[in-house]
Amino acid sequence: MTAAPSPSATAAARRDLGRLVGSERVITEPAALFGYSYDSTTVLRGTPPLAVVQPAETRQVAAVLRYANTHDLPVIPRGSGTGLSGGCVPLAHELVLDLSRINRLRAVETTRRRAIAEPGVLTGDLLTAVTPAGLFYPPDPSSLKVSSLGGNVAENAGGPRGLKYGVTQDYVQALEVVLLDGEVLSLRREEDGDVLALFIGSEGTLGVVTLVEVRLIPTPPARRALLAVFPELAAATRTVSIILREGITPALIELMDDIAIHCVEAYRGLGLPLDVEAILLIETDGDERAADRDAARVRDLCMAAGAREVRLAATADEAEALWTARRSITGALGRVRPDKIGEDICVPRPAIPTMARRVKEIGREYDVPVVLFGHAGDGNLHPNVLFSSLDADERQRGEAAADAIIAAATELGGVISGEHGVGIMKRKFMPLNVDPATMALMHTFKRAVDPKGLLNPGKLLA
Amino acid sequence: MTAAPSPSATAAARRDLGRLVGSERVITEPAALFGYSYDSTTVLRGTPPLAVVQPAETRQVAAVLRYANTHDLPVIPRGSGTGLSGGCVPLAHELVLDLSRINRLRAVETTRRRAIAEPGVLTGDLLTAVTPAGLFYPPDPSSLKVSSLGGNVAENAGGPRGLKYGVTQDYVQALEVVLLDGEVLSLRREEDGDVLALFIGSEGTLGVVTLVEVRLIPTPPARRALLAVFPELAAATRTVSIILREGITPALIELMDDIAIHCVEAYRGLGLPLDVEAILLIETDGDERAADRDAARVRDLCMAAGAREVRLAATADEAEALWTARRSITGALGRVRPDKIGEDICVPRPAIPTMARRVKEIGREYDVPVVLFGHAGDGNLHPNVLFSSLDADERQRGEAAADAIIAAATELGGVISGEHGVGIMKRKFMPLNVDPATMALMHTFKRAVDPKGLLNPGKLLA
Repeated sequence: MTAAPSPSATAAARRDLGRLVGSERVITEPAALFGYSYDSTTVLRGTPPLAVVQPAETRQVAAVLRYANTHDLPVIPRGSGTGLSGGCVPLAHELVLDLSRINRLRAVETTRRRAIAEPGVLTGDLLTAVTPAGLFYPPDPSSLKVSSLGGNVAENAGGPRGLKYGVTQDYVQALEVVLLDGEVLSLRREEDGDVLALFIGSEGTLGVVTLVEVRLIPTPPARRALLAVFPELAAATRTVSIILREGITPALIELMDDIAIHCVEAYRGLGLPLDVEAILLIETDGDERAADRDAARVRDLCMAAGAREVRLAATADEAEALWTARRSITGALGRVRPDKIGEDICVPRPAIPTMARRVKEIGREYDVPVVLFGHAGDGNLHPNVLFSSLDADERQRGEAAADAIIAAATELGGVISGEHGVGIMKRKFMPLNVDPATMALMHTFKRAVDPKGLLNPGKLLA
Repeated sequence: MTAAPSPSATAAARRDLGRLVGSERVITEPAALFGYSYDSTTVLRGTPPLAVVQPAETRQVAAVLRYANTHDLPVIPRGSGTGLSGGCVPLAHELVLDLSRINRLRAVETTRRRAIAEPGVLTGDLLTAVTPAGLFYPPDPSSLKVSSLGGNVAENAGGPRGLKYGVTQDYVQALEVVLLDGEVLSLRREEDGDVLALFIGSEGTLGVVTLVEVRLIPTPPARRALLAVFPELAAATRTVSIILREGITPALIELMDDIAIHCVEAYRGLGLPLDVEAILLIETDGDERAADRDAARVRDLCMAAGAREVRLAATADEAEALWTARRSITGALGRVRPDKIGEDICVPRPAIPTMARRVKEIGREYDVPVVLFGHAGDGNLHPNVLFSSLDADERQRGEAAADAIIAAATELGGVISGEHGVGIMKRKFMPLNVDPATMALMHTFKRAVDPKGLLNPGKLLA
């Protein structure tokens, strides 16, 4: 562990950064700094930062980065801290560059179907703002009420509707990015699409996003929400491929296993069935007729494949209750164990049933509870290994189980990160997915823009 | 102009490259080399290359690039030579690396909805191969019967259906890329999306694509083709925004002006109206009901906005005749003048009517025929300035008119290249669209992978 910053280093940072952004925008109180030592991956504990600086505009971001570059000060860009791979966690008392105060929704352009937002705008607020205009922004981390758009871009966030509508990189049309030397890039998909794309998912290791323009789509006129109840997990996972093979593309297909169902039900009391191994939540959309027709076909396919019953949400409120259930899983898992390692594997669709079985076997082998849920339609599963850090033996078994899950996913041709990014958590597994020549090229690009390695060190390839 | 290669340089290239790929795969006969001195931008004449080498597989591409790197030999990667910005044209007798012989369609995976193709596979052949499985590959350069997938990736090719379905970069899931030092990268969207994207549209200046995996979509169950006849060009261009503002997203909206109509009609005899200023070709798709409903709404909107008549293609053959008309434009323009400068501007949709008017004014100002057609739904217009190179004065006026069109597009907030790439033709205009900091960053990346500037020199930023 790196030594904590000296009082003189802290004082110098407070003085110099205060001149750049105003002293009220520099945090150095130890109690406040502690809150910046972690993100939503509860098991990762970093260090408190040297200081937190909260610029109010692009010009100040550039000034802070120039200062950091001149003084060889490592910088951790941070959105709202809801990441699930440690991408914004300081590891050696770096300076945290908090972008949550640059948070104006600049424009919703209904004719062009575009929104222009500063990085601190919350994803959910963007969605709320565009809805009255009949527009929709599909990428939806389940944390959308608290996650910010800049963080979504940094991690290339996905969400349930990735199945039909893609992920963040499919919607970003333009970015303003500040480099370490203070240069401000204005990147547009039409003109600089290749460079633009390089920054999406780069986890703050290449530059800092200060403005985001996203494409919007017309809100689908109709949506139908279904809850399919499967006594057996294997039947639920098989059904995913069956539906897609029939040429139906639902907006989402979400899987929840028995542990997830029990946790959510205890937390929310939504009337989910407690005597089954799995449920699938499925949404069809399109015009009224297409949404109804697809919902009917999905219901029939589920029943033929082993569902005990399929409930169709009769009202928008009933449908919303189902999505609330899905969004509550991560928060509700604390009822089983206080800590977790949340995986984010993505396997080819035909491998979903095998992967689901392996996850459950691994839980039994290592004697730890492993909950299984996720965006089954994409093959993007979130097995979460649950344990208590107070029980050293259980924690060790939990970590071994998590490694075994990664190994199983890789064997099945899957990847280690579907949507949460690499951050700190998945770094050691990168060579499983990325060949050495590509790793070398990534490092070449990284060195080209950040030769001193000051931008988000210890994350991704930095 | 660079001096032609010496006989000894040619002999050395033939000998050394012959060892790498087999002597029958090295072309050095002057008559054959001439065919590699240009692409489909008729006005650009490059030089014959030193030699053309036609590797049969990735390993040979790597060997050729390593050889070029060791011997400081500049290399021009080439697909099928149908580019419209000079991206594969040798300017100083470089070595041409012809990828058209690496052309196997490796797999069409119907369940995964993917196709894996070598770079020389023709775009149209890919489409034909996936159609029987009920699948569809939307990017469609109008040259799809002759353009190759590797070239589509290099230029990030678009096409009419970009309006609803996006362009090449929206479909590429994985690439195999060979770097100048012979390293072979295997890039997947899920794992290396940012680096993958950097290569799409990089015009062969960063590496050579040797394998492409694309995502496919289910073929829309129904399609309706409409021909809307507008006595006035202004009414046609206004109608584009009106349709989109109503929340309808046709699969394509193509504009053809009077010159385009006359050329195609003289060439194909399809019964297009010859007494009007413009037609719009529009396709709606979806399930039967949605395609019909959207077609009816589009027809009503066109009539209300000034169309004289709207014809709905009654059969698939009738619809195909309309798309054939559209695809024939570029080839048919030779009836007006032998040479052309084909622009590829993209303006914001509300600016389409103004841009169309300016294009016509510029034609009158410079006294050259300017034909206007293109993907109006995207704002991606292809004003083609027509002239004869034998008439030096007309050629000069034509070039000035082309510059004036670029200036007008830029003033209206547009970009210089919608889908044809930058290549040689648009290089001088790059600073109009790309800010200096971004240009500098692009050069930094370029230098990082190609410090000697050997890969496709003189193109894009190389």
